[in-house]
Amino acid sequence: MDNLGVVFLSELVGTAMLVLLGCGVVANVALAKNKGFGGGFLMVNFGWGLAVFAGVIVAYASGAHLNPAVTLGLVANGRTEFVPGVPVDALSVLTYIAAQLLGAFLGAIACWLAYKQHFDAEPEPATKLGVFSTGPAIRSYGWNLVTEVIGTFVLVFVVIGFGRNGDASGLAALGALPVALLVVGIGASLGGPTGYAINPARDLGPRIAHAVLPIAGKGGSDWAYSWVPVVGPIVGGLLAGWAAIPLLPLLG
Amino acid sequence: MDNLGVVFLSELVGTAMLVLLGCGVVANVALAKNKGFGGGFLMVNFGWGLAVFAGVIVAYASGAHLNPAVTLGLVANGRTEFVPGVPVDALSVLTYIAAQLLGAFLGAIACWLAYKQHFDAEPEPATKLGVFSTGPAIRSYGWNLVTEVIGTFVLVFVVIGFGRNGDASGLAALGALPVALLVVGIGASLGGPTGYAINPARDLGPRIAHAVLPIAGKGGSDWAYSWVPVVGPIVGGLLAGWAAIPLLPLLG
Amino acid sequence: MDNLGVVFLSELVGTAMLVLLGCGVVANVALAKNKGFGGGFLMVNFGWGLAVFAGVIVAYASGAHLNPAVTLGLVANGRTEFVPGVPVDALSVLTYIAAQLLGAFLGAIACWLAYKQHFDAEPEPATKLGVFSTGPAIRSYGWNLVTEVIGTFVLVFVVIGFGRNGDASGLAALGALPVALLVVGIGASLGGPTGYAINPARDLGPRIAHAVLPIAGKGGSDWAYSWVPVVGPIVGGLLAGWAAIPLLPLLG
Amino acid sequence: MDNLGVVFLSELVGTAMLVLLGCGVVANVALAKNKGFGGGFLMVNFGWGLAVFAGVIVAYASGAHLNPAVTLGLVANGRTEFVPGVPVDALSVLTYIAAQLLGAFLGAIACWLAYKQHFDAEPEPATKLGVFSTGPAIRSYGWNLVTEVIGTFVLVFVVIGFGRNGDASGLAALGALPVALLVVGIGASLGGPTGYAINPARDLGPRIAHAVLPIAGKGGSDWAYSWVPVVGPIVGGLLAGWAAIPLLPLLG
Repeated sequence: MDNLGVVFLSELVGTAMLVLLGCGVVANVALAKNKGFGGGFLMVNFGWGLAVFAGVIVAYASGAHLNPAVTLGLVANGRTEFVPGVPVDALSVLTYIAAQLLGAFLGAIACWLAYKQHFDAEPEPATKLGVFSTGPAIRSYGWNLVTEVIGTFVLVFVVIGFGRNGDASGLAALGALPVALLVVGIGASLGGPTGYAINPARDLGPRIAHAVLPIAGKGGSDWAYSWVPVVGPIVGGLLAGWAAIPLLPLLG
Repeated sequence: MDNLGVVFLSELVGTAMLVLLGCGVVANVALAKNKGFGGGFLMVNFGWGLAVFAGVIVAYASGAHLNPAVTLGLVANGRTEFVPGVPVDALSVLTYIAAQLLGAFLGAIACWLAYKQHFDAEPEPATKLGVFSTGPAIRSYGWNLVTEVIGTFVLVFVVIGFGRNGDASGLAALGALPVALLVVGIGASLGGPTGYAINPARDLGPRIAHAVLPIAGKGGSDWAYSWVPVVGPIVGGLLAGWAAIPLLPLLG
Repeated sequence: MDNLGVVFLSELVGTAMLVLLGCGVVANVALAKNKGFGGGFLMVNFGWGLAVFAGVIVAYASGAHLNPAVTLGLVANGRTEFVPGVPVDALSVLTYIAAQLLGAFLGAIACWLAYKQHFDAEPEPATKLGVFSTGPAIRSYGWNLVTEVIGTFVLVFVVIGFGRNGDASGLAALGALPVALLVVGIGASLGGPTGYAINPARDLGPRIAHAVLPIAGKGGSDWAYSWVPVVGPIVGGLLAGWAAIPLLPLLG
Repeated sequence: MDNLGVVFLSELVGTAMLVLLGCGVVANVALAKNKGFGGGFLMVNFGWGLAVFAGVIVAYASGAHLNPAVTLGLVANGRTEFVPGVPVDALSVLTYIAAQLLGAFLGAIACWLAYKQHFDAEPEPATKLGVFSTGPAIRSYGWNLVTEVIGTFVLVFVVIGFGRNGDASGLAALGALPVALLVVGIGASLGGPTGYAINPARDLGPRIAHAVLPIAGKGGSDWAYSWVPVVGPIVGGLLAGWAAIPLLPLLG
């Protein structure tokens, strides 16, 4: 298999793992009759953080972006290679993003299967959608966008900082820990208003799955909001990549 | 002592440690009058994750499987040696699994002793069984099996990924951290429907202990369900081992 | 850019990151209608600890003080250089502290933007101030000061201990973990009476932001208390730096 | 200063740090009007675990026992030196234990000062004692002893395992992480019945402080129970040290 094939498979498997476990913790906390029902927001933060941990471990070969905002942030940062042998160009960028979207779609299906009975037992359509995709606590597209931009800026800016300060990224199993902790922290600190998509694939892939899966008693997929967790993270990622050019070499 | 004797003792001690601490956190949260009563699902997740941490530390010599699904997953993955000097064959596989089952049985007895008064004070037989073995939130053997297969697939697939990305497995005390975090995450994310056995020994050993121990006011041991947390994890582990053959070398 | 310019920018960016995420978790837990509303004190502890984690990562170039009490504690400890090429003198100390204050001020503004709608929806002025700055559970300036002195003593004393026991400070992404864990611990263990400022910049910068920002329905900025989380941490940091001179070389 | 003087000071400072932070988290969760009031058992577990983390960092020079059960467990394990230059003999053992007891006493005083107003505001004498020392959920000296023996056995047995599997003990700031995580786990899993003293100094030192300090409205110090968290941990530590002789070299 060529290098882009490896990237595609790696990002697909990693993002599927991320979304299976990430949507899974929301299902556990939110859907009726689960053992973790009402487990609290900190449990959701740890669940998503450790979902990133597992996803990064299995997507080592592609650098474990698992997120178009990371891929585009690295482009904005001026990288010339994503991993050795994979130059940054339109085709590789598309390969990353397509694999992330498809992986997120498949991970959401696996989550639905793992929680099938609880989706059936849950009476509230909005709760079912909330397992798949994010939604705002107070709907206001402009301010929701601001929150997603800020959250994703923090994610991508600090991730670029990880790479700079020595080599703890993916070489050993503990190399996945910093980004996992970062995502726990972003969730706890910036997840209140919008549920911290901070990743277009994480939100859009499962939203498509929600739309097409035969989920009993489901409602609409809230397409009116769906652009916010796509545009916000992309803008935040690009801004972080650009901001890191003058700031980080200077600081490092 | 020969190599298989070391493996037997190592897996026995490690799995006993795992089950003592793992069943212990459930006892603390669920049994009447405990200081941790009602401590929440995240506390259960951390308790089981850190039970894995302690078990892996003391079972270093055998590679710290502590779980037949891991042992069988490595077989399916095509390993030829479990640890240096211990080839993969029918005898070594049986040695691992027998030690894990016996260790889990003994660990459950130690947990019962540590919480003896609280078992006596607890009025509900089902709660007592729940300290020993898992049970479904919504009983449906087929879907419960699906959940256990998916949870164990994640466990074994990512564990195989740990070994691939450098050497953080057991050589230093921090080498036990990745798998501990993974188990915290699987519990939070996939533990809602069935209580995440994801390990046949962890479920069957304590169930046998529940059946034979003179626990005051105990009820039945729910043998009707007992095959699910045995078959599900075995299937999940085998699938993960097989899936890792084409995926991981490619990705690594 | 000269060395002090790098220090200024590094401390500014790092402290802004710290305060954005730190104040953010309080906003999430305390302000009306947030998804993390009522998430509990442990979630606040993890939020602040991981805020330190992110801040330390991006302020690597300046040694990531992010806190005048750390800067002054290192002075009291008798350091001659903060980082290679930056000698300890009046100008460098002022550069650190000015950057920390300005960074904290800017981070608080970013936090306000991320939670803009929730500040608007929150009816209680004291809750809004509580997102920015600390306040006492039981007002008594003398005892509040004692608590802040003890908390900051622990912070600076153990941070000096980190530096002594080998090199885990900032060289790799995991090097930010010890201080993050320490801040989780100080918050859980000593944060009850005063909300653990343990950092004059973290408290004063956001208090100024609270005073000047056009926050809907805000009340006063409690200037009467504002000296306690400035003086207490400075005293605690100086005492820790001095105490470490006879104790730590002896112990190390 | 000679080697035993270093050991004395190191264990004193480390145990004081441990008890200040450990008793502190109980004070925060249990005493009236604290910001962390009702924070839950998992918060107590993390608070004590990170108290160990901070204590181990600052007691590097003496090997950071901080606990007579660890010291005696290493004696039972057959060690000939505690740290280089400090042979195992009656004088060194007494030096360790005396410093641990005195450090715990002083740490409890510091905790009382940090929470002075909240001790004054708390109406319930038993809650005040509970900040200093452990007590049983269901009083039954024999079974309480069993629980403390098992919990301390796990602590000392796994700590001996840390030392065996490579060198992660105290050389870098992350070396304190494994034992901190272990104590989080023991607390969550075995802390329900007796509040997990698992350390005679941690319980007896603060109990003496409770007896002698002028705490407003305090009740008795429950001396009738006081021998359980001394004898139980000593027995558990000795058993772990002895058990590790045949088991661990074999496994290692």
